[in-house]
Amino acid sequence: MAAGPASPPDLPASLGAFSPAQGPGIEGPMTASAHPDHNWPDHDWPVLQPGWVWLCGAGPGDPGLLTLHGLNALRQAEVVVYDALVSEEILAWAPQARLIYAGKRGGKPSPQQRDISLSLIEQARAGRRVLRLKGGDPFVFGRGGEEAQTLVQHGIPFRIVPGITAGIGGLAYAGIPVTHRDVNQAVTFVTGHDATGAAPTSLDWGAIARGSQVIVIYMGIKHIAQIAGALLDAGRPGDEPVAVVANAATPEQRVLESTLARITADLEATPVPPPAVICVGRAALMRQALDWQALAAGAAPRNTDPLGRGRPAESA
Amino acid sequence: MAAGPASPPDLPASLGAFSPAQGPGIEGPMTASAHPDHNWPDHDWPVLQPGWVWLCGAGPGDPGLLTLHGLNALRQAEVVVYDALVSEEILAWAPQARLIYAGKRGGKPSPQQRDISLSLIEQARAGRRVLRLKGGDPFVFGRGGEEAQTLVQHGIPFRIVPGITAGIGGLAYAGIPVTHRDVNQAVTFVTGHDATGAAPTSLDWGAIARGSQVIVIYMGIKHIAQIAGALLDAGRPGDEPVAVVANAATPEQRVLESTLARITADLEATPVPPPAVICVGRAALMRQALDWQALAAGAAPRNTDPLGRGRPAESA
Repeated sequence: MAAGPASPPDLPASLGAFSPAQGPGIEGPMTASAHPDHNWPDHDWPVLQPGWVWLCGAGPGDPGLLTLHGLNALRQAEVVVYDALVSEEILAWAPQARLIYAGKRGGKPSPQQRDISLSLIEQARAGRRVLRLKGGDPFVFGRGGEEAQTLVQHGIPFRIVPGITAGIGGLAYAGIPVTHRDVNQAVTFVTGHDATGAAPTSLDWGAIARGSQVIVIYMGIKHIAQIAGALLDAGRPGDEPVAVVANAATPEQRVLESTLARITADLEATPVPPPAVICVGRAALMRQALDWQALAAGAAPRNTDPLGRGRPAESA
Repeated sequence: MAAGPASPPDLPASLGAFSPAQGPGIEGPMTASAHPDHNWPDHDWPVLQPGWVWLCGAGPGDPGLLTLHGLNALRQAEVVVYDALVSEEILAWAPQARLIYAGKRGGKPSPQQRDISLSLIEQARAGRRVLRLKGGDPFVFGRGGEEAQTLVQHGIPFRIVPGITAGIGGLAYAGIPVTHRDVNQAVTFVTGHDATGAAPTSLDWGAIARGSQVIVIYMGIKHIAQIAGALLDAGRPGDEPVAVVANAATPEQRVLESTLARITADLEATPVPPPAVICVGRAALMRQALDWQALAAGAAPRNTDPLGRGRPAESA
């Protein structure tokens, strides 16, 4: 590593003798020595006090994408008020807690936002340690701001625990980076329908189409024809790549690769289950190289240079 | 909770007898019983095999915002190649690993991206378990896509571990939700300068200004005059709220609240240290209610209804 980076002076270059790999081969099972210490790490962990509400994001699906703060909250909670997109495995990490469901279920009306907020207030006022657990991040199209404001208005102490949003982490599980130096210096996240299920009326799709080379749409399946049409009308090319990632970062993840011109028909021919996140833009091409789940399962990369930029390691 | 949500049939309503708070009062210290089980949770954790590279985001600052996958990676890594924005506390969770610094340091030239990528390849080819650890999320203005592509081109097996990006989680630590139903159905993330430090030339600020009611700018301090001017030229109002969050989610976090018309002068009068993330839009007003770190320290909310919407809990 002649020209490689060096360690800075204020951090130890090596905190122990460096030893080359002594474990099993690449395909071998893990040995105990390869997993030396999975104890809970030393840190001044915050305490979920009685009467407090922690408003926490659970990430896009994979329980391993929960944060340490999220697990710390689950371990302490007496009540967990959770949404539909929170996995059962994550909930099982709070065996001591009462679980209260606050999400939509097929065919049944969802609880009113007001009822959820009042439930949090009631639980906190009863002196319980309350965890409000939402899929993704609570502040990205999740109404977390509204729930937190209601807590403030009722004098309930609270903490925000961010989570990984599906529009970033879910797409990463499909091998799609939402930014790439050769594609975009801006990325726009939009919601494909509002609280009533209607297409958002406040969105200026023409401006979005011109302002962001990559557009990530949450809850966009229902109105995909209208959205794709608006982007085409704004001048985005019909052959622009589109990827739809359903059940991102779960064992049921499914990815549909298409284009702006074809996506509506493709989704009619091959429906994908909700929830799904849609990526519009050339960044979606990177999946041809970076589909790391397929590669780990033995597939060869379909294209090692999807953007036609050459070998990045050879360029500055 | 007469009209509240009920538990779904396929999840246990209560996995144990529910007991009301028995711990200390809200201000009291934690007792052992309040922290019953912080063992590493049961899960089929992936193994960082010799010869593999895991490309992982460390989150915006607070070590508690690292994911469980991130900690699992740190515990197994033999080599950690890390950036400037990764905290020392997180690195200390890999005491067995050799730490290699690959970020910028004041005044000194940063390692070339090529050198970093070649270093990862060299370490992996030596059969080591390699963790590439970046601040925030590796796919959000982090060149993670390029590094991963280089690994693919050289046949190095890899995994992507998303992290919480500063533009979402860092702003949340300042009490700012990047989306709010009363403000925006789109949020745009932009980078304020390119790899050379120049203002981005590909950005259409006029379109961004019209397309997104909330704009989050990474690395925007240097060119703030140009950026604010472009947004004003595009019709955004001079009194539009702007918040600058420096060292987000760290003990050194500092927040400057301003407006589009004043932000350039305010940053000249009160410089903030990098890194900083800038939020433009009315969502920044929510900090007046949701600054949970100040509230936890005993402050009263400055305004319980910053958007003038009434009491959300009373509305559907």
